[in-house]
Amino acid sequence: MGAGIVYLVGAGPGAADLLTLRAARLLARADVVLHDALIGDDVLALAPRAEKIPVGKRCGAHSTSQRFINKRLVDAARRAKVVVRLKGGDPMLFGRAHEEIDVLAAAGIRCEVVPGVTAALAAAADARLSLTRRGVSRSVVFVTPRVGDGEDPAAWAAAAAAADTAVIYMGAGDAIAVTAALAAAGSSLATPVALVESASRPDCAIHAGVLAGLPGLAAARGNGPALIIVGAVCGELAAACASPLREAATA
Amino acid sequence: MGAGIVYLVGAGPGAADLLTLRAARLLARADVVLHDALIGDDVLALAPRAEKIPVGKRCGAHSTSQRFINKRLVDAARRAKVVVRLKGGDPMLFGRAHEEIDVLAAAGIRCEVVPGVTAALAAAADARLSLTRRGVSRSVVFVTPRVGDGEDPAAWAAAAAAADTAVIYMGAGDAIAVTAALAAAGSSLATPVALVESASRPDCAIHAGVLAGLPGLAAARGNGPALIIVGAVCGELAAACASPLREAATA
Repeated sequence: MGAGIVYLVGAGPGAADLLTLRAARLLARADVVLHDALIGDDVLALAPRAEKIPVGKRCGAHSTSQRFINKRLVDAARRAKVVVRLKGGDPMLFGRAHEEIDVLAAAGIRCEVVPGVTAALAAAADARLSLTRRGVSRSVVFVTPRVGDGEDPAAWAAAAAAADTAVIYMGAGDAIAVTAALAAAGSSLATPVALVESASRPDCAIHAGVLAGLPGLAAARGNGPALIIVGAVCGELAAACASPLREAATA
Repeated sequence: MGAGIVYLVGAGPGAADLLTLRAARLLARADVVLHDALIGDDVLALAPRAEKIPVGKRCGAHSTSQRFINKRLVDAARRAKVVVRLKGGDPMLFGRAHEEIDVLAAAGIRCEVVPGVTAALAAAADARLSLTRRGVSRSVVFVTPRVGDGEDPAAWAAAAAAADTAVIYMGAGDAIAVTAALAAAGSSLATPVALVESASRPDCAIHAGVLAGLPGLAAARGNGPALIIVGAVCGELAAACASPLREAATA
């Protein structure tokens, strides 16, 4: 049994003050912090006494590097008391937490999970866009078009088309394929969409239009991480765009 | 133009230390806090100088009381500088934020939205259950079977059945109807399910089994708010239950 405990902690969408109080308290106590590449310096500053180890890749880690992360986690827990594994957004949503939890359990190391604000909710806040709405949307699906070997590449689009609102993670870089997959799954090309870039950050930008124009919206975006929101709840935002693109800085 | 500003703030799933740093800072500055009925005293203690006004009902407000909330919000912003509208979970997910944002905009009152940790993610953390998982789940839908007049009562179940993982909000009280609707939409009665009650709170309890047994799991639950998670990601948890019910206190 290792002496340490590992906390899998959601770092939230980007802004340092969108970490939870619990996450901040654990970072202040941490001996070691293993963090995703996208975690900002202002967030890491909440762990002044910790050794900081950057791990992971910007958009999904390969199996090899996930194995490397798992090994670093176990090693850290064997030499330190409080280890924080800091993951962008929430650990249980597109975070591969499951693999880390299993490895820690197999090594007999205690582990706790601290939830965080996922990027979709920060994007909704920035765009003032309620993901559910009485009479319009009673279901919101969070999906990614990124699939591994042997996974059905069309299943995500069927799930997106079946929900009233869809939030697509890690899809802006493949906007043409995303648009085609949604259309093939039955989504109308006139469905309102919003693309929110760098949610919760000072460089946040919001673009809106209809599904047919999504590739254009995606091509006009900057370098920040982007989410795509699809559904009638985006209708007012799309209609408010006098030009094909609208950009709004957050307050 | 009113002098005040209204912050629609997510209070998170229940535990006071799962509020964000931003939410805590705004509560400390707040002159008035209008809060949902489920918000705990330990959360409200973060706003020591504020006038606290309980509004809203435990499970979805009627139109009449939503109109009353809207009026109280506008009134508060006209007499106070910093007004916090504190909503359970995240404001943009089953929170009716849209209606409050529209009313404030019509009254010329500034409004900002602060995202929060939604209950599904706290439930996943408590159950150590990753909602997505490579090769198993690439889509997670958050749905509610509660629909208003004129809404399609079956649409939520179709969305749930199409996603790899479904999290059902406000459904435990109607577990028999929920089970029947999911089965009618194509979900196998052998699909693993988990029911997480009072996520993030000291009285958190986790029950797991298969969809056919969901009514029994729901009948055995206590009085806390409960979420239902449906999908293969619940498989290990369901298999680990030696008896039909498993209850686990959170750490």
